[in-house]
Amino acid sequence: MLSDIDICRTTPLSPIDEIAHSAGLESNEFQSQGRYKAKVSLSCLNRIKAHRKGKFVLVTAMTPTPLGEGKTVTTIGLAQGIAKLNQSVFACIRQPSMGPIFGVKGGAAGGGYSQVAPMEELNLHLTGDIHAVTAAHNLAAAAIDARIYHEQRLGYEDFETRTGLTALRIDPKQITWKRVIDHNDRALRMVTIGRNEEGKTINGYEREDGFDISAASELMAILALANDLQDLRQRIGQIVVAYNVDGLPITTEDLQVAGAMTVSMKEAIEPTLMQTLEGVPTLVHAGPFANIAHGNSSIIADEIATHLADFTITEGGFGSDMGFEKACNIKAKAANNSPDCAVIVATLRGLKANSGLYDLRPGQAMPAELFEPNQAGLSAGFANLQWHINNVSQYGVPVVVAINRFPQDSDEELQQLKLMIENLPQDVEVAISEAFAKGGEGALQLARAVIKQCQKNSTFTPLYQTQDSLEDKLHAVAIKGYGAKSVSLSDKAQQQLTQLNQLGFDKLSVCLAKTPLSISTDSTKKGAPANFDVPIRELKLCAGAGFVYALCGNVMTMPGLPDKPAFMNIDIDSDGHIIGLS
Amino acid sequence: MLSDIDICRTTPLSPIDEIAHSAGLESNEFQSQGRYKAKVSLSCLNRIKAHRKGKFVLVTAMTPTPLGEGKTVTTIGLAQGIAKLNQSVFACIRQPSMGPIFGVKGGAAGGGYSQVAPMEELNLHLTGDIHAVTAAHNLAAAAIDARIYHEQRLGYEDFETRTGLTALRIDPKQITWKRVIDHNDRALRMVTIGRNEEGKTINGYEREDGFDISAASELMAILALANDLQDLRQRIGQIVVAYNVDGLPITTEDLQVAGAMTVSMKEAIEPTLMQTLEGVPTLVHAGPFANIAHGNSSIIADEIATHLADFTITEGGFGSDMGFEKACNIKAKAANNSPDCAVIVATLRGLKANSGLYDLRPGQAMPAELFEPNQAGLSAGFANLQWHINNVSQYGVPVVVAINRFPQDSDEELQQLKLMIENLPQDVEVAISEAFAKGGEGALQLARAVIKQCQKNSTFTPLYQTQDSLEDKLHAVAIKGYGAKSVSLSDKAQQQLTQLNQLGFDKLSVCLAKTPLSISTDSTKKGAPANFDVPIRELKLCAGAGFVYALCGNVMTMPGLPDKPAFMNIDIDSDGHIIGLS
Repeated sequence: MLSDIDICRTTPLSPIDEIAHSAGLESNEFQSQGRYKAKVSLSCLNRIKAHRKGKFVLVTAMTPTPLGEGKTVTTIGLAQGIAKLNQSVFACIRQPSMGPIFGVKGGAAGGGYSQVAPMEELNLHLTGDIHAVTAAHNLAAAAIDARIYHEQRLGYEDFETRTGLTALRIDPKQITWKRVIDHNDRALRMVTIGRNEEGKTINGYEREDGFDISAASELMAILALANDLQDLRQRIGQIVVAYNVDGLPITTEDLQVAGAMTVSMKEAIEPTLMQTLEGVPTLVHAGPFANIAHGNSSIIADEIATHLADFTITEGGFGSDMGFEKACNIKAKAANNSPDCAVIVATLRGLKANSGLYDLRPGQAMPAELFEPNQAGLSAGFANLQWHINNVSQYGVPVVVAINRFPQDSDEELQQLKLMIENLPQDVEVAISEAFAKGGEGALQLARAVIKQCQKNSTFTPLYQTQDSLEDKLHAVAIKGYGAKSVSLSDKAQQQLTQLNQLGFDKLSVCLAKTPLSISTDSTKKGAPANFDVPIRELKLCAGAGFVYALCGNVMTMPGLPDKPAFMNIDIDSDGHIIGLS
Repeated sequence: MLSDIDICRTTPLSPIDEIAHSAGLESNEFQSQGRYKAKVSLSCLNRIKAHRKGKFVLVTAMTPTPLGEGKTVTTIGLAQGIAKLNQSVFACIRQPSMGPIFGVKGGAAGGGYSQVAPMEELNLHLTGDIHAVTAAHNLAAAAIDARIYHEQRLGYEDFETRTGLTALRIDPKQITWKRVIDHNDRALRMVTIGRNEEGKTINGYEREDGFDISAASELMAILALANDLQDLRQRIGQIVVAYNVDGLPITTEDLQVAGAMTVSMKEAIEPTLMQTLEGVPTLVHAGPFANIAHGNSSIIADEIATHLADFTITEGGFGSDMGFEKACNIKAKAANNSPDCAVIVATLRGLKANSGLYDLRPGQAMPAELFEPNQAGLSAGFANLQWHINNVSQYGVPVVVAINRFPQDSDEELQQLKLMIENLPQDVEVAISEAFAKGGEGALQLARAVIKQCQKNSTFTPLYQTQDSLEDKLHAVAIKGYGAKSVSLSDKAQQQLTQLNQLGFDKLSVCLAKTPLSISTDSTKKGAPANFDVPIRELKLCAGAGFVYALCGNVMTMPGLPDKPAFMNIDIDSDGHIIGLS
């Protein structure tokens, strides 16, 4: 089989204006960005809002290996399969981050014959939305340090006289807004900034800071959760970046930087229209990383797609404990929209990896035996898939399991897994998907199963309500959403919880950051762990995004590069074509 | 008069494909990026290279005030004036940096009725080239720290066994590649990275680092100086990022990251086509900052423009000691192309500011008296303009002085200045430009003067030759190019010079970073200082760009935000339009 990039390059694509028109957009509702991308204007919603809303399908997965189990392949393949059944359909996915692309995991365009194209444009800068988020985020960071520097340099009174502004008296020890960069850069996790060379004071004042990957920026969450430009502006102004010397919150509005941040994201709020290899319209919008962010693409894109098509297929990052949980408990509330059906992607590889019978280490290649038939491995790992089926079912959403076939998989073992799922007591549909090798043709069975489940009534129920206390919300996610036994807050987190309650931020949702490689917060616990504790080491207020962010276990918000990163394979050839991107 | 952004918004623009076609590009030679921008494919050069080359005009200036004297206004106005005289013409300018836009100076689209439009797209992300440079730069930085981390973690031998790579044995004390960000962020000038929390070693190793503004990245220089994609790839691979424990240079090629960096800049190498308010095609490409970079737009854009039009108007940043010097001594050599005429922009305000009679402080508003007629101020400041006329003349390039009129300027004083210039012994043309208030119509006199001077033979001579020693090159720029008496190298710079000579990098050009607010390296020395010394505190090898970079005086490669930054005025209004951008 050809490489992903070669398949993509040799598949003829339609001009993006043809895709846009056939998807139901009018000429003044999009602007082409080159031949195969277009920015979709939010003004289209004024026209199409009255349309009947199509079905909304959320693709999730069992607990994945570090390379992923093919959720995007399945999302794209399913959309292509539905199109082959003559239903109108959109795929809605997030923009890939350059961190994984140059690190270990590689691109995020899907793969094989189920890709968003051109994959190199999707995987690299696309239309610059992540850069816009990064720029707006770091502008606020520069604004904080400049403000403290000038207030300290001049003294509060002189500062006020000279500038006509009110001194903000920010406490440099209570700055919660870090900086971001869209790379895996371990060395920037913890930094000291404003460092002075002996005798020089040009940098102002020294303090501890750190960089997160851009996907973890609150602005990325806001981009996904905003309903329109004015909502974006308002949410940005609510961001709390620090506390002053009296312990009161300081917002970007206080810094008078919220307007400029919004201006910097004015183009980013428009979803980017692309196409799959089979010409299915695909909206790409907002950020990835369901482990350290909410990990779902945007409400705006879903809104446009569901008002234009019979079916909209989107995905939430990692397993159903991760992006799916956040789609249901954070995004669905902000969108006032919930899934009509969930697809859980499972693979033979993923089941075996969850059996506990293999020696899997992060950053290491996966053992070849993982692809060999292994009855014991399959059975042991099946508990993980069962857990995810039960988990999704508790939200009241009809379930389809998609067994994503890898080329190496044996027919016999695939059929065996299918039978195991069919024999479950739950009302679950199952289909083997060959979307990778065969495109939409390989996903027809899956498409039929999804259409069938979409006819059922979804009785969607999130895990908690707005009026619940923050503590109850954290418990709801950990205990009902992960199956944990208990939650323990560090002293720091406990203090932060008290402060958040005092400041009146108790009506927000909660967004837990944890490893995606286990249902628990310990990546080595495979299968369906139970009786575990969820240790929360720190809480962060994301008042603009509308949630309190909880860091669980030793999860890190800035990945590192491995010893032999993927960037080593990437280059241009003598014709100027990109090679090695996958 | 309306604000810049209101003028821009109320002026009807042509669709960019009409601009492209009327400029002589064929449909397959550009890709529209929205309605008013297009990326121009380098493949057009294959077709047009055989065309006769048009005249190449370089706009420079007297020593400016911190707000600039209107070089871009004059560049755009002149191009519009030439178009009104029925000559085919292109403007070629650099992409603005977000640092000054959100800091003090504001946008860089020109102003009044001589702007590149839409100004908000030009001033913000445009087509993402600066972001691509930033991303590629920081990928290399992450690659360096990750490599050292893994080599130290595993030990050289185990690293080699495990990865199959050769250990690079980079000396963490000799890393010359910093990180970059496109903001004014004082706090990032000097940082400690890889800092560990007590007991934790997840970040690897701690070291001193710093951030430059993206415009100062060697990659930005490479983007401007590369002739095509393969040249870009080769130059990127030649970048020296560090030295190993034996003192030998380590390149991005050694890190196997040069290919991925090139891939990240693959779209950035295509210039962005826009238009002026009067429909003159404008190519926007590469980075600004002639103080801390070479400060000129790209060779590729010039090459396309000069093969399509009778006249190409471009600009070099700041005064003729800055961007113009680098255009002549660095860019002209790499391009094998030199200016046929230079325009020196002068203003009444600028002359008075150079008189030494006013109390001007960086970061403070300029005194209102600067706009009142003042015979003594004009006469005293005239020495600065004379210096720049002599400076440009020594390169053998015919000169036009453009007096850029501000609305407040008196007719009488403008005529007086014009007469003073006409009375000079040099063969200089002079014209008052009202390009700001009247567009091309206000620049007709200037356009005629430029066309006249372009008929003369330019006898272009750079200040030094390739075979000259690095020391001689530094002296040539300081003594011939600035009028200094002497050059002193710090001990550090002297050691670096010795090392560069030993390593065989003596055939490179030199790029001096210094204040743009004086011809000397001391920003307080106004007018035409003489008998000064140029202190060089540090040398940096830019082997990919093809020059040795010299830091003079106390010049800083990362600006800071002022106490009341421009971002405070920028916002969206209730219709979603940008306000406050200028």
